Amino acid sequence: MEQRISLVTLGVRDLARAKRFYEALGWRGQEMQETVFFQTGGMALVLWGRDQLAADAAVADIAAAGAFDGVALAQNVRSREDVDRIAAEVAAAGGEVTKAPADTFYGGYAFYFRDPEGHSWEVAYNPGFTINADGTLTLPDFAAS
Amino acid sequence: MEQRISLVTLGVRDLARAKRFYEALGWRGQEMQETVFFQTGGMALVLWGRDQLAADAAVADIAAAGAFDGVALAQNVRSREDVDRIAAEVAAAGGEVTKAPADTFYGGYAFYFRDPEGHSWEVAYNPGFTINADGTLTLPDFAAS
Repeated sequence: MEQRISLVTLGVRDLARAKRFYEALGWRGQEMQETVFFQTGGMALVLWGRDQLAADAAVADIAAAGAFDGVALAQNVRSREDVDRIAAEVAAAGGEVTKAPADTFYGGYAFYFRDPEGHSWEVAYNPGFTINADGTLTLPDFAAS
Repeated sequence: MEQRISLVTLGVRDLARAKRFYEALGWRGQEMQETVFFQTGGMALVLWGRDQLAADAAVADIAAAGAFDGVALAQNVRSREDVDRIAAEVAAAGGEVTKAPADTFYGGYAFYFRDPEGHSWEVAYNPGFTINADGTLTLPDFAAS
């Protein structure tokens, strides 16, 4: 199995609301058969009915409303100012900032939010991680750092 | 907020077990401060303690064991044969195949599995999605197709 991810699909109960939220952050996607696809660099973020996703995966969806996914997405940004700016954008778009921007143990600065469906995101400035001009992220060689 | 994802962090209860599973699939990562980082194209998959992740996000982790995340990762592959081959690899590595390889409504072929921590993955052949030579995925223009 190659070491890569093609899609991250977020199960949603209200597709229109979720789509509006990401659009309010400036994202632009395509809706096709009650599914929304956002091209995110060399992969895609997909919004799809949570019931349909669980059924497609053949797993029972027994999570309580508001339960933590056990998963967090993250966007690394280029400065502390970006973190503060995006936190304001997220709040204005109706996201729930669960942890306000704060210094991190690794010398960075970050905040967390949940989208309207409760999916967790971190937005982080981490001076140890390289963000390339095209927005891709390259991990450091931790052994050398 | 730019339209991109830098990290997908999977919360884990047994880091060593989760690391072994992805390594058994052929992935190679770096462990740093009880966190495992896998470079996946222009982003990274991260394994981190589920309790630590929930605490970092300042959200309560009330999910029952075995609950669906509400999220699925996917890897798109180049052929139906790849789907069958990876399903066998995943089973051999100790993954739980929740849905065996089968035809999909969009003319593709796919299976789902859960990693040892219950995180859902789909491996799919979708003839409508382009997989580039470097493994990145480009969505079609649905309006034109």
